Amino acid sequence: MPQSTEISSLTINRLSVYLRGLRALQSQNIQRISSSEMARRFQLSAAQIRKDLAQFGELGIRGVGYDVSHLRQKLESQLGLDREHRAVIVGAGNIGTALARFPGLNSGSFKVVALFDNDPSRIGDDLGELKVSSSQDLKAVVRETGAEMAILAVPAEAAQENYEALADAGIKAVLNFAPVQIKERPETRVKTVDLLIFLEELASTLR
Amino acid sequence: MPQSTEISSLTINRLSVYLRGLRALQSQNIQRISSSEMARRFQLSAAQIRKDLAQFGELGIRGVGYDVSHLRQKLESQLGLDREHRAVIVGAGNIGTALARFPGLNSGSFKVVALFDNDPSRIGDDLGELKVSSSQDLKAVVRETGAEMAILAVPAEAAQENYEALADAGIKAVLNFAPVQIKERPETRVKTVDLLIFLEELASTLR
Repeated sequence: MPQSTEISSLTINRLSVYLRGLRALQSQNIQRISSSEMARRFQLSAAQIRKDLAQFGELGIRGVGYDVSHLRQKLESQLGLDREHRAVIVGAGNIGTALARFPGLNSGSFKVVALFDNDPSRIGDDLGELKVSSSQDLKAVVRETGAEMAILAVPAEAAQENYEALADAGIKAVLNFAPVQIKERPETRVKTVDLLIFLEELASTLR
Repeated sequence: MPQSTEISSLTINRLSVYLRGLRALQSQNIQRISSSEMARRFQLSAAQIRKDLAQFGELGIRGVGYDVSHLRQKLESQLGLDREHRAVIVGAGNIGTALARFPGLNSGSFKVVALFDNDPSRIGDDLGELKVSSSQDLKAVVRETGAEMAILAVPAEAAQENYEALADAGIKAVLNFAPVQIKERPETRVKTVDLLIFLEELASTLR
């Protein structure tokens, strides 16, 4: 199996799209699928799919296609989703609170283990199974829980310093919702969710 | 200029990435950029960039590159972002409230003109310039404001019926935050923001 660093971010995005499709197929009890049928469903080229899957040794059988369940497991393993990833959320405002309650963050590969805020009036608030913790306890909680990932849901002006605190605490990957570019440190990857991209894509369909 | 329907959704995503990069270049007072330098910054191939831009008649000058300001305007026009798009938000919970306050949704090409909820205890709440309106007024408000787009921020089980109400009210494009697949009607495009894709991509970098 190639190292994940050899697989580009665009390929990972496509693998993630395939995985989502395969899960939908499984829920419809579809057991086999050809690359051309996958191409039609995922709006990609069949050649692209065969190339992506061949990279990690997955070859469809001509006339039969791929085994949906097996391919799903291979993709989950390739994407590192065959184990639980613990995450903390920094910022207990509207977005942080919504994410703490988001079902997909508390089942399958991800588990939110703590939610931090620096506003004393919020610390101690109950959010289902979680209580809002003080940002001062970040380092200790990350060490105790073994959290590797974080979601940054703080105002733009506080994003960089909170990213630094997460990196200092040993967090390896950060999903940033603040509308600002974070200066990345080599040991802690950051991905910014830019909601304007989705809106711009939608707007471009309005003529 | 080709019709937007001739340009694939993947191309639109890339144009949106280029546009974001060009805005960053402009803020750094960079006036010209070559396709190879754009490729390096946007992690795409230079050939892909030249192909995408040639589709709408934009050709860089060899040895000089593209004019950043002109190219930005061309992309904004191509993406339909050279005019204001009015949007409504359905669901005044955590996500809806956060989005109503999001700066990018209230400057430039987008303007949130109303926020709806069906919970009587929320109707009338003040959110900066907006008040929460009753979902029963959706049709009238869309007609009065000329809103074309909507953001759907309701629980998964309420998403489809609210999408139908938006389509009935004449909304042409919906950005859905509910973790559920919406059955689309031909006149009203829907795009679902799946936060798990971002987390899965990040998780795949943790080895």
